[in-house]
Amino acid sequence: MSSSRRLEELIEALRCLPGVGARTAQRMAHHLLERNRDGGRRLAQRLAEAMDGIGNCARCRNFSDTELCSVCTNASRDASLLCVVEMPADQVAIEQATGYRGRYFVLQGRLSPLDGLGPRELGLDLLTERLAEGEVRELIIATNPTVEGEATAHYLAQLARQHGVRPSRLAHGVPLGGELEYIDRGTLAHAFGARQDAG
Amino acid sequence: MSSSRRLEELIEALRCLPGVGARTAQRMAHHLLERNRDGGRRLAQRLAEAMDGIGNCARCRNFSDTELCSVCTNASRDASLLCVVEMPADQVAIEQATGYRGRYFVLQGRLSPLDGLGPRELGLDLLTERLAEGEVRELIIATNPTVEGEATAHYLAQLARQHGVRPSRLAHGVPLGGELEYIDRGTLAHAFGARQDAG
Ligand SMILES: [Zn+2]
Ligand SMILES: [Zn+2]
Repeated sequence: MSSSRRLEELIEALRCLPGVGARTAQRMAHHLLERNRDGGRRLAQRLAEAMDGIGNCARCRNFSDTELCSVCTNASRDASLLCVVEMPADQVAIEQATGYRGRYFVLQGRLSPLDGLGPRELGLDLLTERLAEGEVRELIIATNPTVEGEATAHYLAQLARQHGVRPSRLAHGVPLGGELEYIDRGTLAHAFGARQDAG
Repeated sequence: MSSSRRLEELIEALRCLPGVGARTAQRMAHHLLERNRDGGRRLAQRLAEAMDGIGNCARCRNFSDTELCSVCTNASRDASLLCVVEMPADQVAIEQATGYRGRYFVLQGRLSPLDGLGPRELGLDLLTERLAEGEVRELIIATNPTVEGEATAHYLAQLARQHGVRPSRLAHGVPLGGELEYIDRGTLAHAFGARQDAG
């Protein structure tokens, strides 16, 4: 039996966070109550603001507080390069890992007819308009190397060519620091076949 | 560069949760925004209610929504047994693991002079009043088996005896399912010395 109904309700609500089970939720709730109520209040406030105040950019479909996001309205970014990713987290990964200074388009998914995700759901009408504007010269296709991601990439490459835009794809191969012994066979076979002259 | 300031602020606020680093916070924020905004709104509401609405029970010091908690006001619980624990989570563990139907007292810490935690900070004046009432017959001391927990237990046992109350202590020994090979020497030595007749 618990001593507080509000505490039980908080623990239950924390379980909406990914990877948070009953035990972790209890630990989180006790931690906030015992040591950081101000942090808990700030989190409540920011959660409320985010859930109601974050929409999708009308141009790139990424998360945005305003009609157009801060990446789309940043005039210093190269509008001739457009990188297509599946999810917002993929854009974050590219921003953090590379020096890319072009623009993005976020599919918010990948072609998956069985899940009801077709060109319309991925905003490809919006992407088509974008390509038709004539400013984009290269479409960098950064979908995931899964079956669905590859099918999506194939579709996007065709779409680019139809508009006279050069499609490109992230290189496949052995990850830096990866040990050959532990790399999946498909990747290893591809890397072997696509081998390059040693420098 | 991020596309949304509100998203950045949410990610930063999520890091007040124990065990949540930058990467996990980002994953949590994206998950809520993409798949469960209602869950995020409910969490915001319950966090706010908990941080401002949960205090400490005036009798047992555990978390409570009201002056006296639901365990203290539950007339069906045995008032002659009082179990002292360090933290609210310890009470939860005992409630879940045992069939104990007595009352509790929560120290919200353990004696630790270097951290400024003395008898006053642990509410021992309140515990003393409780023992003086004469209703408690056994004080079950369930502090942790650490140096500070043992020192606290020793202090509490003396306090109990001063009021004619029998102090008891959780049994030490080999954990069920534990392998002797991996048990710390102190526990093993204690368990060996306190060996009982085999049934
Ligand atoms: Zn945008
Ligand atoms: Zn109470």
